[in-house]
Amino acid sequence: MAYELPLGDAERLRKQIEAGPDNIWRYAPLLPVPADVASKPSLNPGFTKLVKADNLARELGVTGALYVKDDSGNPTHSFKDRVVAIAVEAARAFGFTTLSCSSTGNLAGAVGAAAARAGFRSCVFIPHDLEQGKVVMASVYGGDLVGIEGNYDDVNRFCSELIGDPLGEGWGFVNVNLRPYYGEGSKTLAYEICEQLGWEIPDQLVIPIASGSQLTKIDKGLKELIALGLVEDKPYKIFGAQAEGCSPVSAAFKAGHDVVRPQKPNTIAKSLAIGNPADGPYVLDIARRTGGAVEDVDDVQVVESIKLLAETEGIFAETAGGVTVGVTRKLIEAGLLDPSLTTVVLNTGDGLKTLEAVAPTTGQSAVIRPNLESFREAGLA
Amino acid sequence: MAYELPLGDAERLRKQIEAGPDNIWRYAPLLPVPADVASKPSLNPGFTKLVKADNLARELGVTGALYVKDDSGNPTHSFKDRVVAIAVEAARAFGFTTLSCSSTGNLAGAVGAAAARAGFRSCVFIPHDLEQGKVVMASVYGGDLVGIEGNYDDVNRFCSELIGDPLGEGWGFVNVNLRPYYGEGSKTLAYEICEQLGWEIPDQLVIPIASGSQLTKIDKGLKELIALGLVEDKPYKIFGAQAEGCSPVSAAFKAGHDVVRPQKPNTIAKSLAIGNPADGPYVLDIARRTGGAVEDVDDVQVVESIKLLAETEGIFAETAGGVTVGVTRKLIEAGLLDPSLTTVVLNTGDGLKTLEAVAPTTGQSAVIRPNLESFREAGLA
Repeated sequence: MAYELPLGDAERLRKQIEAGPDNIWRYAPLLPVPADVASKPSLNPGFTKLVKADNLARELGVTGALYVKDDSGNPTHSFKDRVVAIAVEAARAFGFTTLSCSSTGNLAGAVGAAAARAGFRSCVFIPHDLEQGKVVMASVYGGDLVGIEGNYDDVNRFCSELIGDPLGEGWGFVNVNLRPYYGEGSKTLAYEICEQLGWEIPDQLVIPIASGSQLTKIDKGLKELIALGLVEDKPYKIFGAQAEGCSPVSAAFKAGHDVVRPQKPNTIAKSLAIGNPADGPYVLDIARRTGGAVEDVDDVQVVESIKLLAETEGIFAETAGGVTVGVTRKLIEAGLLDPSLTTVVLNTGDGLKTLEAVAPTTGQSAVIRPNLESFREAGLA
Repeated sequence: MAYELPLGDAERLRKQIEAGPDNIWRYAPLLPVPADVASKPSLNPGFTKLVKADNLARELGVTGALYVKDDSGNPTHSFKDRVVAIAVEAARAFGFTTLSCSSTGNLAGAVGAAAARAGFRSCVFIPHDLEQGKVVMASVYGGDLVGIEGNYDDVNRFCSELIGDPLGEGWGFVNVNLRPYYGEGSKTLAYEICEQLGWEIPDQLVIPIASGSQLTKIDKGLKELIALGLVEDKPYKIFGAQAEGCSPVSAAFKAGHDVVRPQKPNTIAKSLAIGNPADGPYVLDIARRTGGAVEDVDDVQVVESIKLLAETEGIFAETAGGVTVGVTRKLIEAGLLDPSLTTVVLNTGDGLKTLEAVAPTTGQSAVIRPNLESFREAGLA
């Protein structure tokens, strides 16, 4: 499963990629996967839409090209399908028979689905008091779903204990003992964005921060494309986005610190609610090195931004997408993000999974009797 | 907006299609849309995955190739994005300014999203007592969502009245006055299936029946591909799938009738719950002419089939997908569908929108304390 970047003939590599399948396996030569990976049973995630967001650009005062990379188009509707797909191939190579993870929702569903299709048993661990919708989604694929009496940190600790115990023999935890493979999956976001822009690096990227892994791997992916000669070397700025209720990296960035002080999360953006982000220091380094920044928005702005994206582009994002869109607006207002350049904003999940965030501020405009008079009275014609 | 099939140079047409965008606009020459349609703001639905379902095949005793055409990958996660996209282009050509529809859920969301992106106002009508999740999804895109005190038939009647009234001037109802365009969108399912099979018609297709329009348009699409020389002419069988609680077409098929007697729907497969399907007689004709059949399954089988598809292929279908998978199993057992041939089963929607169907039979396998002893006691290792 070791791999080396295929340096050398960039033109040949580009053609090979472009002739590949419409999913992340088109980048197989750049990933820690076997060469025949595309023929294995997989959910085949990736190659999601890069949406030119002209309506949103107008609303935000962006005069350059604005794009939304919409990962809600993945098989289980979040970017987690990318990272899990790579971990599954590693699990296959290592001879693991059970796939597992600690999760607060998106990841549990992604692992359950990928395991079902790839022929693994799955057993995933969640805090026992998750919303019913997430429990249904995570358990419908037929694997075991185990609720842990405790919070996400307790779940994580338990998983680490299980790995070291004979009970956990043959188990691959995608975000623990398979994490080095898992993480590489996020590079495909960088590859796709550049390929979809005609093999060009965008000037600016706005990326959500949970553990920070995704942001660091996108930076890694961009550097690889440059090293391979697939894109021209040019400066780019990476911006990190957090929710105010869980903003340890943003706080460190603003304070000029190199280390990240853990926080106790309290935000509706639960998929980003990691109070002690493992890759926080690397995120700080990347934001500073590239001339970017890390910013946060409060929950009201998250909801407003989910609705703004839906109303302008017809994309219904989960809370993490509200965070990136909201932070983009804030960065423009602060003069940190240049509205005249090409910008890509990530939406990493699906609004259907976080309905409760927008439920209080959406609903029927009117309820009428089934006749024209009643409709006229409602004043909506 | 009139169009003629571009008969003549099949090879040239095939190359043009294959070089087109990864969405339904690759088939623009075969659709009632302007030639530059791909450059208009649209959700760009289509070209969803055709999943080779080997695990499901084993479970169903299928020895031939079995595929699931998974339309949950569309932008708002149902096949409705296809039909709405065509209707939007017609609305643009006719100068309509407001997009509308009568809906029980999926369509309302698809119209709201497409209108937002394409720059139309939207005002959609639903029965006032829909589930909150569907209301949120349909209203998040910022258009007006009007609840009608009554059932879906009342909503439909009201829409027809509104079209004839000055209040409805400039309004395009995608499934009423734009229906001829709307319907054509379903042909793209046939085009994609054949292209994804290497320009071959599958031996057998299993298609859900609501109004019956989708099934008739898929048959139309297959015939067009043959006429155009894009695929070889060969016999194919079309099977229709209904839920027992709303099975007017299945009942007529089994009774040998040419007409369909309306039923009062009572099934969890709400997206198929049309008791008086407009295209029922045409469906009967197609099923009989091609040597197919129409069958139905009860709600218990719908839920079992949703779970079977999830557990074998990692695809979480809405109830309509449970109907097609369940009917496929029933048709094989009855000897009506040949398990040694190539079969394509449609999944037209997303399980996240019908969570309540599987909620009672899914959930946590166990709830444990965060320690190994507690996990050992649960007996899941």
